[in-house]
This record gives sequence, C-alpha cells and structure tokens, in this order.
Amino acid sequence: MTAVDVVVMAAGKGTRMKSRTAKVLHRLGGKPLVGHVMDTAQALHARRTIVITGHGAEEVEAWVRQSEQAAGHNAPDFVRQEPQLGTGHAVQQVVPVLPDDGIALILNGDVPLVRPETLQALVDKCAGERLALLTIEMADPTGYGRIVRQGEAVQAIVEHKDATHAQRAIREVYTGFMAVPAKKLKAWLARLTNDNAQKEYYLTDIVQFAVQDGCEVVASPALEQVEVDGVNSPVQLADLERAYQRRRARALMEQGVRLADPARFDVRGKLTCGQDVEIDVNCVFEGEVVLGDNVRIGPNCVIANAKIAANVVLQAYTHIEGENVGVEIGEGALIGPFARLRPGASLGPEVHIGNFVEVKNSTMARGAKANHLAYLGDAAVGERVNYGAGSITANYDGANKHRTVIEADVHVGSNCVLVAPVKVAQGGTVGAGSVVTRDTDPGVLTVARGKQVSITSWTRPKKAAKK
Amino acid sequence: MTAVDVVVMAAGKGTRMKSRTAKVLHRLGGKPLVGHVMDTAQALHARRTIVITGHGAEEVEAWVRQSEQAAGHNAPDFVRQEPQLGTGHAVQQVVPVLPDDGIALILNGDVPLVRPETLQALVDKCAGERLALLTIEMADPTGYGRIVRQGEAVQAIVEHKDATHAQRAIREVYTGFMAVPAKKLKAWLARLTNDNAQKEYYLTDIVQFAVQDGCEVVASPALEQVEVDGVNSPVQLADLERAYQRRRARALMEQGVRLADPARFDVRGKLTCGQDVEIDVNCVFEGEVVLGDNVRIGPNCVIANAKIAANVVLQAYTHIEGENVGVEIGEGALIGPFARLRPGASLGPEVHIGNFVEVKNSTMARGAKANHLAYLGDAAVGERVNYGAGSITANYDGANKHRTVIEADVHVGSNCVLVAPVKVAQGGTVGAGSVVTRDTDPGVLTVARGKQVSITSWTRPKKAAKK
Amino acid sequence: MTAVDVVVMAAGKGTRMKSRTAKVLHRLGGKPLVGHVMDTAQALHARRTIVITGHGAEEVEAWVRQSEQAAGHNAPDFVRQEPQLGTGHAVQQVVPVLPDDGIALILNGDVPLVRPETLQALVDKCAGERLALLTIEMADPTGYGRIVRQGEAVQAIVEHKDATHAQRAIREVYTGFMAVPAKKLKAWLARLTNDNAQKEYYLTDIVQFAVQDGCEVVASPALEQVEVDGVNSPVQLADLERAYQRRRARALMEQGVRLADPARFDVRGKLTCGQDVEIDVNCVFEGEVVLGDNVRIGPNCVIANAKIAANVVLQAYTHIEGENVGVEIGEGALIGPFARLRPGASLGPEVHIGNFVEVKNSTMARGAKANHLAYLGDAAVGERVNYGAGSITANYDGANKHRTVIEADVHVGSNCVLVAPVKVAQGGTVGAGSVVTRDTDPGVLTVARGKQVSITSWTRPKKAAKK
Repeated sequence: MTAVDVVVMAAGKGTRMKSRTAKVLHRLGGKPLVGHVMDTAQALHARRTIVITGHGAEEVEAWVRQSEQAAGHNAPDFVRQEPQLGTGHAVQQVVPVLPDDGIALILNGDVPLVRPETLQALVDKCAGERLALLTIEMADPTGYGRIVRQGEAVQAIVEHKDATHAQRAIREVYTGFMAVPAKKLKAWLARLTNDNAQKEYYLTDIVQFAVQDGCEVVASPALEQVEVDGVNSPVQLADLERAYQRRRARALMEQGVRLADPARFDVRGKLTCGQDVEIDVNCVFEGEVVLGDNVRIGPNCVIANAKIAANVVLQAYTHIEGENVGVEIGEGALIGPFARLRPGASLGPEVHIGNFVEVKNSTMARGAKANHLAYLGDAAVGERVNYGAGSITANYDGANKHRTVIEADVHVGSNCVLVAPVKVAQGGTVGAGSVVTRDTDPGVLTVARGKQVSITSWTRPKKAAKK
Repeated sequence: MTAVDVVVMAAGKGTRMKSRTAKVLHRLGGKPLVGHVMDTAQALHARRTIVITGHGAEEVEAWVRQSEQAAGHNAPDFVRQEPQLGTGHAVQQVVPVLPDDGIALILNGDVPLVRPETLQALVDKCAGERLALLTIEMADPTGYGRIVRQGEAVQAIVEHKDATHAQRAIREVYTGFMAVPAKKLKAWLARLTNDNAQKEYYLTDIVQFAVQDGCEVVASPALEQVEVDGVNSPVQLADLERAYQRRRARALMEQGVRLADPARFDVRGKLTCGQDVEIDVNCVFEGEVVLGDNVRIGPNCVIANAKIAANVVLQAYTHIEGENVGVEIGEGALIGPFARLRPGASLGPEVHIGNFVEVKNSTMARGAKANHLAYLGDAAVGERVNYGAGSITANYDGANKHRTVIEADVHVGSNCVLVAPVKVAQGGTVGAGSVVTRDTDPGVLTVARGKQVSITSWTRPKKAAKK
Repeated sequence: MTAVDVVVMAAGKGTRMKSRTAKVLHRLGGKPLVGHVMDTAQALHARRTIVITGHGAEEVEAWVRQSEQAAGHNAPDFVRQEPQLGTGHAVQQVVPVLPDDGIALILNGDVPLVRPETLQALVDKCAGERLALLTIEMADPTGYGRIVRQGEAVQAIVEHKDATHAQRAIREVYTGFMAVPAKKLKAWLARLTNDNAQKEYYLTDIVQFAVQDGCEVVASPALEQVEVDGVNSPVQLADLERAYQRRRARALMEQGVRLADPARFDVRGKLTCGQDVEIDVNCVFEGEVVLGDNVRIGPNCVIANAKIAANVVLQAYTHIEGENVGVEIGEGALIGPFARLRPGASLGPEVHIGNFVEVKNSTMARGAKANHLAYLGDAAVGERVNYGAGSITANYDGANKHRTVIEADVHVGSNCVLVAPVKVAQGGTVGAGSVVTRDTDPGVLTVARGKQVSITSWTRPKKAAKK
C-alpha cells in the first residue's frame, strides 16, 4: 500500500478572529485547531507530517513540536510560506520535503473535525494514482467551488463567480481536502500560474492539469458538514465547539454514561468513564480525567486532571484541578458541595471533604474527614482523622512551605491552626481555637488558648451620629 | 363505565443502557421511568395496576412497592416474566390476576411521557368492547409496525420487514400501547404462537385474532412523538429528560413563573410557585420545593426539599438540601451567594445568610445574621443575633452532637468557637477569637484569648536555598 | 428632514403575564421592555418621546422618567389612557402633546427587539407624507391582519376573521408599528369610531381613511420575526430573552470575543471587551462591565459592575458585584475560584484572591494576596501583603464600621482577627491565631494567643448510649 504523507496548511492569518493568536492555535475542546488535525494525521498512520506555517509561524511550530513530542509521535516537518500567495503557493513550499513515492494528503489546519475514516476513504479513492477530492453536498452552495462531473469522473472545480447557471445548481462542492500521488502533485504544482485577479496560485488549478494529463479525478464525499467546516471567526469557532462537544457527549452516552443534559457538558481532554457513571448538568472536564464505576457528579462541577475511584460522589460546585501532579480520590469518598481539590490532593477511600474546604498537596488516609470551612496544605492526614471546621494548616511561613503530619485517629477541633512543621501524634485531640506550634504526644489533649473571662462593666458601642 | 386495569410491561433488560440498573429504574426528572408510568396509572384512576417484571425484578418490585406505599396508593400486583419470550408472553403472565370484567390498558414501563388524557382517549375508544391501539404519525416510520386500515377500521399491524411497498408508505405506526377488553384479551392471548424466526410470542398478533373474530380494531393517535418515545439507551434517556424538562418549564411559565432560560432549568420532583417568582439560569430543583410570592432565585442554585416564604432572595450558588427534614426560610430572608443550608435549617423572617456560610439543624429567629465564612450546626439563634465572620459552633465532640444556644441580641465576634453544649445569654457579646466553653450571663462581654504582645527580636524566615 | 416624534404604547395590562408588575416593566436582558423601546427612540434621534401609560401607570412613568434622566436624555412626555378603549383610543390621547409638523413613529412598549435601522427605513418610507406600515412575512399568519396590496401600494389591513380565502393566503402581516405624518394622523384619529363588536377604537382603521384621502400607504418589511415579536406571557418573554442574548453574543463574537458556548451566556447591561477575551460557559454579566485585553473568565462566573484590567484571570465561580461603587481589578490579577468581590473592592495589579475569600470596600495594592477562606472589609492592604488563610477583619463592632490598615510587606498568619480600627505597620508579622486590637510597630512580630499545653489526663468523650 502506498504510504501517506500528510500536508497541513496552517499559514493563514484569520483576520476575522481579531486575535493576536495565530488562527490554528485557537482552541477547540481545549486543544488548538491544528492539534486536532495532527491527531487525525496520527490516526491515519501518516508516514510523515509536513506543516506549512506562515502567520504566527514560530508559535505554531513551537506548539506543534512540543505537543507531538509530548505525545511520543515522530517529529513533524515544518515549511514556511512567506509571503502567502495562495493555496497552490503554500503547497509548493512542501515540494522539497515531500517524498515522491507517497500519497500527499492535504489537510487544513483550521478544519478540526474531519473524521479519520472520511480521510481514509479519500486516500483509498486516490489509491496512489488518482486525484481524489473531498466533497460535500450543501443545501446552499453559494460562494463555493462546484464539482463538475462527467459521469462519475470529475471534470473541474468551477468557482461560484465563474459558474454557469446550470453549474450553480450543483450542490456538491470542494472542501479543500485532497489526496494526490506526490509525484504527480509536484509536476502539476510546477505548472501553476498566478494569472488571475488576485495574483495568487490556486491549488485547485491542478484539477485541470490532471484532466489534461488523463489522470482520473474522483470525488469522495464527507458524511456531514461539520467535518469540513473551517474556523475563520469566533462565531464559527463557537459553532464547531458545540458540534465537537455534542460528538463527545454522544460517544460517552453510547458507552453508557448518563448525562443529565448533553448540551451542557464540556470535555476538553480525555475523559474515561467506568460503568454507571452519572454526570449532572453543566460540568466541565479538562485534561485527563478518569471516573470509576458508579461515580456520580453533581451539577456545576469543574474537574481537571483527576483520577476518581468507584462509588465516589462529587456534589455540586466541586472544583478539582490536578494540573501536572494530579488529584486522586479513593473509593466511596464524598466530596463537596463547594469543595476545592488542588494539585497533589490524594484522598483515600471513604474520605469526606465538605463545603468550603480546600485541599492541596496533601494525603488523607481512609475515612479522614474535613467537612467544613478548612484548609489542608502540605499535610499528611491519617485514617479516621476528624479535621474541625475552620481549621488551617499554616504551611507557609512567608518564605518556605513546611509539612504538617496529623496521625491516625486525631481530632482537630474547630478554628485551630497547625503551624508547620508540626506533628499531632496518633489519637491526640486539639482543642478548639488552638494554635499548635510544637509536636504533640500520642493520645493527649492539646490546647493553646486564652481563659474565658466575663467583663460585666463593658458597654456595647453605639451607632455613631452621622457627621 | 367499565373499570380500567393497567398492565405495566417492565421486564425488559435494556442492554443498550449498559448499566447494572434495570432499565425501568433509570431516572427521568429524578424519578424512575416506571414511576412516571405508575403516576399515569394513578391519574387514570386505574382500578388495579399489574406490573410485569423480569430483569432486575426484585429491585423494580421493591422500588414500585415502596413508592406506591409512600404515595398512599393501592398496592400494585406484580407478576414475573421469566424467561422473556416476547411481549405476548409478557402479557400472558398477567392472565391469572387480571379481572375479566375490565379494560386492560397496556403501558410500557420505559415510555414515561405519555399523557393521561391521551390514554383516556384510548380507553374511551376501547369503550369496553373494541381493541384500541395507540398510534403515532412518524415522518420516518422505517422499522416500525404500520397501521393498515380499511376505511377507519384497522386491519393489521404490519411489521416493516413484512410490509409491501405501498404499506411502507404508511406513516401511522403502532406505539406499544393498547386498551382492550380483558376477557377478549385473555381469549386472544391463549391463541398466540411463537411460530416465527425469533420464537417469540408477539402481543401485536392479537390484532389478527380480533379481525378474525369480527371485533372492531380502532386507532387512537398520540398528539406528540415524545409521548410514545421509549428509553433504550442513555442518548434516548437524555433526549426524553430534556423533553420532560421543557414540559415542566412551560407549565410553570404558563402559571406566571419567569425563567431566564427554560433550557437551563431542571425540576426533579414537585415545585410549587407563588406569584411573580423569578428563577435565573441553570437552577436545579429536587424533591419538594415551595417558593412563595416574589421569590427571586439567582443563577446556579441547587435547591432540594425546602419551603421558601414570600420575598426571599436566593443569590447565586445557593445550595439547599433539606433531605427528609426539610429547610425553611422565612419571609424576606436574604441568602447567598455561596450559602449552604442543610437539613433542619429553619430560618425566620429577614434572616441573612451570606457567603461561605453553612447552616445545619439550626433555628435562626427573625433578623439574625451570619454573613461570612461561618458554621452553625445544632444551634438555636435568637432574634437580631449577629454571628461573626469565621465563627463556628463546635457541635461535635468526636462522639456526640450537642446544642448551642445563642439568645436574642447577642453579638458573636469573628473567628469565635462556641463549644457545645453552651449558651450565650441574651444581649451578650463574645469578643473576636474567643473559644466559649461555659455559659455566659446576659449582657456581658465574654473574651477568651491571649494578650497581644510584640516581639521585636524576631526575624522573618528566609527562602531556603534550593538543595 | 422632517422631525420624528416617537409614540410608545405602554398602557397594556398583560394579563397572561400573571404578574403584579406592569407588562412593559418586565425585564429583558436586565432592562424593562419599555426601556429597550426608549433606547430605540434615542437611537433614532427622536425629537420628542411620548409614552402612553395605563395599567401600572405610576410605576411605568416613574421608571421611565428616572431611567431617561439617569441617561441624560430629554424628559419624555407621558399621557394616560384610562380607560383603555383600543389602540386608536390610545393614540388619541397623544394628540394634545404631539407636534403637527413631525412624523409620528408609533412603537409598542412590549416589543423590545425592533432594530433602529428597521425603524429608520420605515420613517424614510413615510418621508413626511405617506402612511408607512411595518410588516413582516410570516410562515403561518393565522390570526394576524393581512396586508392587502394593489401593486406596491397597500390598500387595507384585513383582520384574519374578516379575510377572504384569497386574503388568508397572504403571508405579509401588520406588526403594530407605523410612521405617519402627525397632522394627517390627527385628522384620521378624529374620524375613528368604535362601531364594532368589541366597542374599541382601532388604530388600523386609519389605513382606510388614508386610502380614502388619496394618501399613499406603503409597507416596509422587518428583517426578522424577532424584531416584531411582543411579550404577552412568560413563555414569550423567555423566548425573546434568548433571542436577545443570542444577538448580544453574536455581536461580541464578531468583535473577537471568544465564547465557549453562546447559548450559555447572559449579558444584562453593557459589556465592553478588549482583544482576545475568552469567556467560558454559563457566565452572567450585569450592569456595566469592562474587560481588558486577554482577560480570561472561567465557567459559572457572575459579574456585575466591574472594571477588569488586561491579563486578569477569573477562575470558576467568581462572583463580583460592584453595585453603585463598582469593583476594580488591576492588570494580571488572579481571582477565584469561589471568590467574592463586593462593592468597593479595588485590587491592584498582580493581586491574588483565592477560594472562599470575600473582599468588600477595600483596597489591595500590587501583589497583595489573600488566597484562602478570608474576609477583608473596610481595609487598606499594602503591596505584597500576605493575608493568611482564615483571617478576618472585624470591621463592624455591632454599631459602626471601622477601617483596618495593613501596610506593605506585612504577613498576617492564619485564623487571625484584626479588630478595627487598627493598623499593622509595615513589614510586620502577625502570628497565627492572633486577635490584634492595638496598632503594631513596623517590622515586629505580634502574637496574641494562649500557650500550648498538653493535658494527658483527659479522656475523649464516648458515644452516648441511645436513650
């Protein structure tokens, strides 16, 4: 089988985006547009991927290089198109690095949702010898280049403005994707001229060369419009974002995930779900998230980079951000509402984290609880610890971070401060309102607070007269 | 009038749900599918309701039995279909418990949104003597059994695969619902055979027996597709959930409730609203919720089992969960944002609960305030009390819960702890940062804290050198 | 050019709203319906605006008067229509205050989304001499008054019930908007009769007088249905609210703002955005909000009356309410998640406000941080201050509010209380758990807490036996 070399056109400016960011770096489902196209190339087992950059070339190349490296893919090639003199001119830049013996599959860096199977069908139609064009039937093809056929064979792509009345009735249009034998492509590219009003070199002109040369030109249809829709404006980006999210939602539901509202569900990354997972309205998932069997997620949760074991319940407004180090939640834990888990929170089975509680870079062993208004940072919390309402680990002395150790079966009262580095030994109790600065012995009650006194002479402040 | 006995088919497996839960126990609007069908039976004043169970029979029966009992309905009958040999076989199981003198109304446990009025019309068409089939006109009936008529009378239900070209053009299809005189049904059920490729007994075969016997077969149309849509997959469940929520939203709006976005509104239970209620985007209501006149609810609130009086304002992200004991909020109270009210929170008129405040199993009398970062659990709070920022009732000693009493006109300063059981008597003041462990006298200032000292020799920690 | 005087019909009851509020005071995009119409009059540079009130006249007039005054517009005129005897009768009330020499442009106070350019075209068609009717093509015009033409000229508006079969096929209908020379209008109004079943005076009857008088009647089409849709019920209000929000979202996207989901985006007021602004799902903007370049707003934020500088990041669930005094956030600040900024919060560049932190009426200078569970009210916070977790400014003594000053480079430990009025001088440190009631000197460590003691004899409470 002929090898496929993918050419990604990613040089465009995207003026209508009105952004300082290069068009193909705008994000869809949390990933730059060009990243979706690179993933598609990967899914097609492309031998080589060549990215044509132009506007924002350095940022685009840097992102693509880093992303492909992180994913363990082969390094892509980059060619620059400067200045930008049309689609044909763009592909001409590729000639030096494109092998002669393969099929060149030309993709657009701003068309993120084409399916690999659609492109595989296109490549199969090319079969190493034909010029294969990806086409789509449009209800209203106004403005698009029509596919003019004679029988099955394509005779030309006719631009809207050049089309006859009869040709304008054609609803099949060219999408910008093609698969073409590299050797023929190179020959045809050499024959392009910019003899037109815009003084640009058009890639589509190669169709006429193919016809002249007796090379068969074939059309392969895309299944749905969204596959070939490009992003040229924030409106189009938002439209495709929704299409993408619907696709993700449907795929998860078909695996058995139950979504309260697929239209209020966003995945930006990889979401892996066990059996009988239920996700309530308006949740957002980012990065890599794994949900075990029977996990139930309440409304309005935001979850990034977390591994959540079976039977965990996340209540409303749970915010988890694992960033690089991740967050882990053990089986049967109960989290939220209004809980925030930050990088390095590692919670054992049956842990409870309640409202207005923040946990960062801390381990909590089986059955530990922090149910109300508390902060745990840089702490190791033992089994069955009850960490009281309003209690804080003072992990930062203004210069360095220190660790707090709370051993198993400790009860920390309300509004305590544990000033790190410090250890509360096993089975100990810390009285409410205590500031603990020295390690405690196992089993003892530690208190550090003033004596309760009553002042009867005191009179309450009066409302000041308005001046 | 002939009595109606409802037969609910609830034995199916629902393989495409990919769930361990029986299909009819999956929830729509917070209630299992079969529960919606039971409600419909109730709305029709069915004399008897017979539920055919199979897959997950024990769970299904337990849920239905408990739910009907809690609602004060007559106990339903259950019959098991094991093994499952088709819809006709399912209904055959009902024969021993189905009275001869009534109309059998056959419903599907996984078709939750059929309207009682639609079924009443079906029953009326049956009129105790005809075989009445519920039908629907479909734009694309591919795959469904066509209703073949001669004049008005139905001649047959013809399966798609058996249909002639002309029959395939028929857009009226059978929905799975029928009303049929019980005595005739029993006679026809006895004549069913499994002489087909699947070796199943099809209920629809009784149509031919009716025609043979000269019994009139009539069709009664459902008004909208959603009434007859069944749930076989999470995608279908989500679609019907949205249809159900649109129906709920529209009904409330027609009563005068103002919804900022009906597409972002979820009711899972009973929501009763007074006049001039306004509900902002993305709110979720569960269980039994009552909203008085002029209640305004901000965006992103989640409210379960609560009774909220007139003129209450719930600001954004208010989370209320009354569970079994309920939450009550008095007239003119102001709650949120980021407030959480838990079971047994009972707030008087004009109470203010502010951000990051949790109230559980506590009463607050008229005009009491807890505006910032506080926890009130197992407390009785008097009129006009001001409960300071960061203050906590330490209601749990690690083994038992105790009550805190804060009498009228008390001011509790910031970051206090009231260690229950304890009482702060009327008009008292608790100084900031105090831990109160003993009851206080009326009117006095209570403090329990260290003396403020300055340490000039101290030097601030320096950033550690990286090792 | 002939001057335009706008007549706003705002007397209707709106029974189907089922509300105590007058219909035209119901809010769309946060503003009463009549306010949108007043804005439109303003956009057309109307010479005079006359509002016809009836139901809820006092509230309507009060709102309009106050709102126009606040906006610096000319005071509108008000005329009362009592009782309400039809649209013609309504406009008759205007006669005494309507100048003879202008064009009367008649608008409906409950039709909020008509575009100024649509009305300008209507006025242009009137051209000071013709009767110009705003019309719309409807797919289903059932119930609406048809525009009967002879050639281009309009001959009549024929009510649905009076229409012939041929007339019912007309899809162009009258919308309730017209532009008409005032002098002619007055003459025609004087000829109206209530000789009909409802005993009402219909404004549309003037069409026949115009035709009789040989005055040309012309139709000017609205571009989209939503421009001429009125609000008569909460369902219609919700529909128009969504149409309005889609319009706002699209306009912002066309300026370059990137919205994760335009269907989950609400603006109720004025939102001004710099370049490369990104707004995640389900955010709500109220009042006047300014977002600088590169501002990124996370999911589920609610933001009112705030000025947010370039490069600020607002994380999920950030709640900002500036009310009258506003909130300001300096360049590069990082806010949230679960942060709440209240009126008078004024944050400098690079300030960090973290989870469960409330800031009210306080300034924070460059680089100050309050990252966890804290309250800052009536405080002036210096540069680089680190305000510890759980710390509180006790700004309210139960009668008056006092200010707290925290000078530059101060570190406030965890769970502290600063009892205002108080100053922590530059470079000072406050030890964890301290209650500071007196001013401190620069650079010193201040502590106010009990000594840590261990009590070994203490035994932990046991679970009480159930009684």
